[in-house]
Amino acid sequence: MPALVPRAPIVGRYTAQELALAARNHAMPLEALAWDVTPPGLHYTLVHFDIPRADPCAWRLAVDGLVAQPLSLSLEALQRLPSRTVRATMECAGNGRGHIVPRYPSMPWLKEGVSTADWHGVPLALLLDRAGLRPSATELVFWGADRGVDRGVEHAFARSLARAHAECEDVIVAWAMNGAPLAPQHGAPLRLVVPGWYGMASVKWLERIEAVDRPFDGVQQAHSYRFRRAPQESGVPCTRIRVNSLMVPPGIPDFYTRRRIVSAGRVEIFGRAWSGSAPIVRVEFGVDGVWSEAALEAAPGRYAWCGWRATWEATPGEHELSCRATDASGARQPLEPPWDEGGFGNHAVQRVAVSVR
Amino acid sequence: MPALVPRAPIVGRYTAQELALAARNHAMPLEALAWDVTPPGLHYTLVHFDIPRADPCAWRLAVDGLVAQPLSLSLEALQRLPSRTVRATMECAGNGRGHIVPRYPSMPWLKEGVSTADWHGVPLALLLDRAGLRPSATELVFWGADRGVDRGVEHAFARSLARAHAECEDVIVAWAMNGAPLAPQHGAPLRLVVPGWYGMASVKWLERIEAVDRPFDGVQQAHSYRFRRAPQESGVPCTRIRVNSLMVPPGIPDFYTRRRIVSAGRVEIFGRAWSGSAPIVRVEFGVDGVWSEAALEAAPGRYAWCGWRATWEATPGEHELSCRATDASGARQPLEPPWDEGGFGNHAVQRVAVSVR
Repeated sequence: MPALVPRAPIVGRYTAQELALAARNHAMPLEALAWDVTPPGLHYTLVHFDIPRADPCAWRLAVDGLVAQPLSLSLEALQRLPSRTVRATMECAGNGRGHIVPRYPSMPWLKEGVSTADWHGVPLALLLDRAGLRPSATELVFWGADRGVDRGVEHAFARSLARAHAECEDVIVAWAMNGAPLAPQHGAPLRLVVPGWYGMASVKWLERIEAVDRPFDGVQQAHSYRFRRAPQESGVPCTRIRVNSLMVPPGIPDFYTRRRIVSAGRVEIFGRAWSGSAPIVRVEFGVDGVWSEAALEAAPGRYAWCGWRATWEATPGEHELSCRATDASGARQPLEPPWDEGGFGNHAVQRVAVSVR
Repeated sequence: MPALVPRAPIVGRYTAQELALAARNHAMPLEALAWDVTPPGLHYTLVHFDIPRADPCAWRLAVDGLVAQPLSLSLEALQRLPSRTVRATMECAGNGRGHIVPRYPSMPWLKEGVSTADWHGVPLALLLDRAGLRPSATELVFWGADRGVDRGVEHAFARSLARAHAECEDVIVAWAMNGAPLAPQHGAPLRLVVPGWYGMASVKWLERIEAVDRPFDGVQQAHSYRFRRAPQESGVPCTRIRVNSLMVPPGIPDFYTRRRIVSAGRVEIFGRAWSGSAPIVRVEFGVDGVWSEAALEAAPGRYAWCGWRATWEATPGEHELSCRATDASGARQPLEPPWDEGGFGNHAVQRVAVSVR
């Protein structure tokens, strides 16, 4: 790979490039947390390059490389295979980047780069089994049809998974989302879905699965999507979604500031919490830095966000509400953004400014 | 109405408030111009306050005020009435605001606050006829269920139309978009659609149509959505969509800058042009300020955008591509943004930076 061209960190207000990325890449409005499954068009999207215009009738998925029987499957052929639905919360690894100081020049997510969908498709393990992975195959590389330049290197978006993970039944090659064919921006006609992992693993516009015997060194695997404290570090790969939570901001908004206006008295607060590593075991609700226990709803499955509720006796004046989740591994959200030079994995607590009157 | 609280103009980079609005309010990625009808989830959205969570079974539309027979209609009752489909290009009146200097603090649209849909519903004229408008009724006020504060004034989003316009058969009360029920962010379960007008007229989450005998003085009618050269002017209402055009940026993008990379040689350029006043009669395609005629496709209807094509012999180096539409009224896009203090109606030509290699 040629030497990568770095981008200088940003301090202060947002650049025209950051704004253009925020316009293209849709966040989930926080009030959409109210839905168990994010309605069509409200699920967050990150499109690295352009959305390919795909013809589902002509689409083929290749499974090749270190396999006994290379496959080339039409969408129709895939849809004749046994299939399943997985409800999964997906989050962009860069969610929260817009709050990091200094800020890596990329998509400036605030807190809303997260959503939940019912993904339907064929287990990846079944395709790998049909192709017959050779014993030497150690990784699977997933190639998308989207192509562009990042840090000076032209490439198609591609990511890999270790063989043991790829053979796990929860990873699927999906053609439907919430009961409808995938929308163009969600990878139509085919995408990978890797439940529990940050979204970069769930390669969209999937056209090739390649079995290889060495670590994949593509830009989006070996360079991007790695936690680093400083640019010269080789870094640690972004994998499972860190424990996180959000609330539906109460009351009504001011149009420009989005500050919330709430009437004094009892206010019911609702939110969601999630983690890619372990079940959510606790959510705390904070008012002006004082924490209390929120009530957890039953988890709707291993990979989907879990509802929580709290009651707030709102008194007139200015307040800051927050929420903080803990998962069964003991991981808990930090109060301040963890430092990362690329702005990955910021799962610091949400802070909602409220005027009570 | 209480005195409105003004917001000070912004120069230079974008504020955190502008970014938060751009995250919530989705733009149409320019490659989606390739579709005649914008696919689900790619149609632009502007939500002034929060998306209401509506129960379609419990929803009622009231038609009242200066009518002989007030109505309260369920969605089911509306769907039993004669209905029609209107294909319409909708554009936010603030599209292009992000390019105005200085900039009004609001949603900082770049160029992509525009899309096209097939809207399906009952003609508004039919509902007004059933309610029996009194001779004294001069305007219809359309009340949405979304509520918040703007410029210090709490209000539900509401807009009015003159009686003669409201009785025009092309205005519809829609429950479906592109053959599916309205998505929450597009006004589920019911919205007004006013073809040819900027989007603010097409009130979402419509729950009341009120016939009145005087000009409506709501915030979004009497103060916002008016062209003004200076804040103290009373202004001219935003109504019909100004002539405008866009192209699908050719080649592949750089991730962060979105600059286009194109291979030297013949490049086919495709775009769309639209106007709320009159048919498109001409599109010019510009390369480095030199204009040539683009080929127009047949218009798909009175209110929908019209495709255009041009061929470009790309030579190595840095280039700027642009496009410029003219409608049958003689209106033509300006080369530079027309000044407006609120950032409305910026239909200046698109400029696409391209590196050919």
